[in-house]
Amino acid sequence: MSSSTINADTRLVTLVNIFTVDPANQEHLIELWQRATDEVIRHLPGFISANIHRSLDGTKVVNYAQWNSREAFLAMLNDPASSAHLKELAEIGTAAPVLCEVVSIHHPADAPK
Amino acid sequence: MSSSTINADTRLVTLVNIFTVDPANQEHLIELWQRATDEVIRHLPGFISANIHRSLDGTKVVNYAQWNSREAFLAMLNDPASSAHLKELAEIGTAAPVLCEVVSIHHPADAPK
Repeated sequence: MSSSTINADTRLVTLVNIFTVDPANQEHLIELWQRATDEVIRHLPGFISANIHRSLDGTKVVNYAQWNSREAFLAMLNDPASSAHLKELAEIGTAAPVLCEVVSIHHPADAPK
Repeated sequence: MSSSTINADTRLVTLVNIFTVDPANQEHLIELWQRATDEVIRHLPGFISANIHRSLDGTKVVNYAQWNSREAFLAMLNDPASSAHLKELAEIGTAAPVLCEVVSIHHPADAPK
């Protein structure tokens, strides 16, 4: 089983992208996003991870994605195959992407450092 | 250096909370959120991690937080000390919390499984 790591000392760029969707389309949007990621996005240079989440209330799909630089992320947006997929997603949901970087990580008071 | 792990096979609840803030207050909001987490939230039962991010454009602060159940997360909202801190955050930013669960994780095509 694969996993992704959030680290405060790397220079990764994180894209937190929240799609708002009709609950009837949440599962379909997830499938489209998984296919776009598997067929195109994960083959692009600088891609580190995509972590797809469903909101418990059915109205959102969240992607927590990691890229090794802002340039790699911008190149993905301009890639013809990935932008075709993103356009398909935009037909059934409204994206709210936030490009960010990790500032700090906090664990339980009794956890090992 | 600590890190957090995103896993698709755990039963964690993830709270993705995006605060919109005046860029002049982004750093202040981050400091308040770090203090609330260190002083109160990380001592509560069921807390797994908080991962605070700044948006590169200065207008957002994102917390990717993990709890071991929805009940633990709801108990945090009702805890007097943590709700006092959350009220303080709400004075300088607008929260958009999304409670969700991991559906799938994707890595580069050439990465080890």
